[in-house]
Amino acid sequence: MQGVERIGVSVDKDLLAVFDRLLARQGYQSRSEAIRDLIRQQLSTEALKNPDVQAVAAVFVVYEHHSAKLMERLTSLQHAYVLQTISSMHIHLDNHDCLEIIVLRGRVGEIHRMAEKIVSLKGVKLGRINLIATDLA
Amino acid sequence: MQGVERIGVSVDKDLLAVFDRLLARQGYQSRSEAIRDLIRQQLSTEALKNPDVQAVAAVFVVYEHHSAKLMERLTSLQHAYVLQTISSMHIHLDNHDCLEIIVLRGRVGEIHRMAEKIVSLKGVKLGRINLIATDLA
Amino acid sequence: MQGVERIGVSVDKDLLAVFDRLLARQGYQSRSEAIRDLIRQQLSTEALKNPDVQAVAAVFVVYEHHSAKLMERLTSLQHAYVLQTISSMHIHLDNHDCLEIIVLRGRVGEIHRMAEKIVSLKGVKLGRINLIATDLA
Amino acid sequence: MQGVERIGVSVDKDLLAVFDRLLARQGYQSRSEAIRDLIRQQLSTEALKNPDVQAVAAVFVVYEHHSAKLMERLTSLQHAYVLQTISSMHIHLDNHDCLEIIVLRGRVGEIHRMAEKIVSLKGVKLGRINLIATDLA
Repeated sequence: MQGVERIGVSVDKDLLAVFDRLLARQGYQSRSEAIRDLIRQQLSTEALKNPDVQAVAAVFVVYEHHSAKLMERLTSLQHAYVLQTISSMHIHLDNHDCLEIIVLRGRVGEIHRMAEKIVSLKGVKLGRINLIATDLA
Repeated sequence: MQGVERIGVSVDKDLLAVFDRLLARQGYQSRSEAIRDLIRQQLSTEALKNPDVQAVAAVFVVYEHHSAKLMERLTSLQHAYVLQTISSMHIHLDNHDCLEIIVLRGRVGEIHRMAEKIVSLKGVKLGRINLIATDLA
Repeated sequence: MQGVERIGVSVDKDLLAVFDRLLARQGYQSRSEAIRDLIRQQLSTEALKNPDVQAVAAVFVVYEHHSAKLMERLTSLQHAYVLQTISSMHIHLDNHDCLEIIVLRGRVGEIHRMAEKIVSLKGVKLGRINLIATDLA
Repeated sequence: MQGVERIGVSVDKDLLAVFDRLLARQGYQSRSEAIRDLIRQQLSTEALKNPDVQAVAAVFVVYEHHSAKLMERLTSLQHAYVLQTISSMHIHLDNHDCLEIIVLRGRVGEIHRMAEKIVSLKGVKLGRINLIATDLA
């Protein structure tokens, strides 16, 4: 079972006033929640610097409709890098282009190496990757 | 119909050698393809600075399983910001957490404002956003 | 005179344990200090999205030694964009290249527009910009 | 002596038209120059992922005026991480705060580890780092 601890933080009043204004605009209901989010973001950013950390990645691939063999090559890349595909989603962007979002699990290092190969595939117009560390508490 | 133009580019031999090594490692089959990708990336980055440009966004939300009303609030946010949801995908991360990927269309400015609100929702542990400009050729 | 307020923040024990390990590695002596830094970073990032906010920028320009008129053009750009140069620093990188770091004050929007022009100057090999919001408490 | 090679690149006419408009706005005088800059940026980004690559870094430190021993600690950190300081610049931001820009040479990995320690020093309000790979052609 998970416990909660209450910690005290000293902050300059001026800084706190600017922070409170930002939280109001963003819609936060409490400072605690906002500060927890800052802590989680920081931990996630740090964790993702380590190539051995387990992460969930969403790979975005914009490609031309008629690049028939592209999906085959994407699949074989996922096998080559020992990554486990969780799910994928296909979106029709316009008459020419599709967007494929592939969600997979694996180590940060493997994911980056695979992403490099994906972006360079013939027919891929844009490739992006978004990582979320899953080892965090 | 779309035509192709052949342009000439002068590059220092030393620079070209380093570039060629990178392309080999990434798996590119031609310099043309790699340079087209660099051009598209640059245009996409520039376009996304303009809040009025149309984009497709994938919003990532990691949240606690038992945050029952969260999905309702996410849906009402999408309506509040005149964004058109294309698709969404739900992934079970572990016993506590889920990942929801929501793909939507709209203006860059609206998308960013909505993303701010999403991250601040109670129950949301991490929020990220990935934008792709769709106005590019 | 500036006052300090002590606020209470509730954090899951597991999350806190991971955070404490990161702080130890980074060398922080207290959580308060680390959390204040996260707050300031967040406020700075948010402030810099506003093109009208006052900022201090450091512009990095790597250029070829013998690009004689480059410094002249850099100077005239700074005048064209109503930016106030505070200081600059010249570093010899190797036989071919120099690094010039120019620190200036102005609005975020003006700084970005000038940076675009700088990067495109003939002789400039790499240009980067680093902004610090000065309107923060 | 350095030679120049002329390579041919095939680009869709539509994409080229959008690219040309961007170059005009940024002030580029030729496509070759713009494409060389894209190549250099890409190589620099890739190189900086390798912790063993030599780089020049500019470290930004915003700190409170009266943090008397901070500069001493900064100096001893630079020695601890086998980094060679090239130059530094001090800027008075306002009544409270100073900006110190320290330019140093070293390996990417060492620079990142030192930057972590700098940001966590008592009295440091904001720390940023900007890296430029110097191993490029």
